[in-house]
Amino acid sequence: MEIIDNVKDMQLRADEIRSFGKTIAFVPTMGFLHKGHLSLIEKGKKAGDILVLSIFVNPAQFGPNEDFDSYPKNIARDLELAEKQCVDIVFTPDKESLYQKNYQTYVDVNDLPNHLCGLCRPGFFKGVATVVTKLFNIVKPHYAVFGEKDYQQLAVIRQMVKDLDFDIKIIGSPTLREEDGLAMSSRNAYLTKEQRPAALSLYNALVKARDIVKKGEKNASKIINSVSMDIKKYKDTQIDYISICDPYTLEDVDIIEESVVMALAVKVKTTRLIDNMVLTPDLNYI
Amino acid sequence: MEIIDNVKDMQLRADEIRSFGKTIAFVPTMGFLHKGHLSLIEKGKKAGDILVLSIFVNPAQFGPNEDFDSYPKNIARDLELAEKQCVDIVFTPDKESLYQKNYQTYVDVNDLPNHLCGLCRPGFFKGVATVVTKLFNIVKPHYAVFGEKDYQQLAVIRQMVKDLDFDIKIIGSPTLREEDGLAMSSRNAYLTKEQRPAALSLYNALVKARDIVKKGEKNASKIINSVSMDIKKYKDTQIDYISICDPYTLEDVDIIEESVVMALAVKVKTTRLIDNMVLTPDLNYI
Repeated sequence: MEIIDNVKDMQLRADEIRSFGKTIAFVPTMGFLHKGHLSLIEKGKKAGDILVLSIFVNPAQFGPNEDFDSYPKNIARDLELAEKQCVDIVFTPDKESLYQKNYQTYVDVNDLPNHLCGLCRPGFFKGVATVVTKLFNIVKPHYAVFGEKDYQQLAVIRQMVKDLDFDIKIIGSPTLREEDGLAMSSRNAYLTKEQRPAALSLYNALVKARDIVKKGEKNASKIINSVSMDIKKYKDTQIDYISICDPYTLEDVDIIEESVVMALAVKVKTTRLIDNMVLTPDLNYI
Repeated sequence: MEIIDNVKDMQLRADEIRSFGKTIAFVPTMGFLHKGHLSLIEKGKKAGDILVLSIFVNPAQFGPNEDFDSYPKNIARDLELAEKQCVDIVFTPDKESLYQKNYQTYVDVNDLPNHLCGLCRPGFFKGVATVVTKLFNIVKPHYAVFGEKDYQQLAVIRQMVKDLDFDIKIIGSPTLREEDGLAMSSRNAYLTKEQRPAALSLYNALVKARDIVKKGEKNASKIINSVSMDIKKYKDTQIDYISICDPYTLEDVDIIEESVVMALAVKVKTTRLIDNMVLTPDLNYI
């Protein structure tokens, strides 16, 4: 496994791989890898010849009061896991080489961030779109894999790739869950054992919504109210948002006539968790 | 000479050229080619193996009261000139294929546009940075050539390329002038014979400033005032700005101690002209 920490070296290596007629699949991460990331790597390996994994905690996507400084890190373990997963190249730039003195260029997607997480985290998707553009220009992939757990991020990246004509195929990868249903996330490391039931309330809300939509419930507010009450029963929870929305535009849906996405963000004490699920009405249900 | 009007076809062709180990030099233009453009093409041909010229009048860089609809066009003549100049590929996308329904992604450079033309043309450099990003992703060049006549544009593109890690070498190409000194520009086509002396006042101002700086004048305001008066003598002129600034940051310079750029924008009736020149104090001058 190669480890590259320099932008120019990565670009040269990408050119070399491409000149051999090989394709590059790219999995961008902020490290602290878990099984969710490993499933993205698997997906990438099926798509392209050479798998490049990046590990970079991107300062531009953290707000001033967010957890940039405390974001969990374990680079030694990440490299070990990547090696086991037969990653070909790990790209690990440092903050200073990606954001140099006098840095001033940002990529902004206008509409999609005005929903869900974008409302609670101003600047977040600008930070994401910018760093992903940079990484695309450095890694030069044919394919890039993003988790469906970060549903809005995936939607923003797809829009950006289309709008800016990146010649890259974006692959969404289904959310991996712990045995109890909790969506895998590096931030789960923050959770205490006592907070686990509260953390699970996100998944339970999605399953409940999925089931009642399948049984014919069409009223989105009714569903949202019902699961809100369930979540609020846990004293450590604070709901950022619960939304039932159009899978493409992320606009709120009032009456569920076709597949929609339910997405939610809930703080469990100081740990902010997100999750989502597609809700599909069963048209044969009477 | 190949003519390509489709984004996907251009990307495939760029991949093919690269897979043969050839380099691509790119000259983006808005068409209505003149000798200035031809000199950019010459420069590009020296840099890379295959020269791609794009012709696209970019709506995103025109303000609502600007000349998008009337911008001069003559595609037949452009293609003839390109062929004569031994251009390999002309890329001529239409507006709809570059800005599709629901388009919403923009590239923004924060600081450099807050000077010179950026002040009179809000959104202009956002439009430029966005379309150049798109064209870079479509044409996939190794080299891209921009004229020094659009000095601020060149500075913005260099900054963007550095910040977003585009693996592209930006080449600046000196301003070409008519015999009388007028900087070549597609917009010169708007000028009547009677307006020519007024249009020439930009070049004359730069030459005067260059000469007095060489002779030891260090006070920027004094120079600006002096050339302003010269320009205002022509009744059809309206000065947008005259600036003596740092060549990299474009910040105003008060006392000229080393090379600076003098840049100006002047409207001659409804035709907005720009020009610039490096002013270098002669340190040996007593």
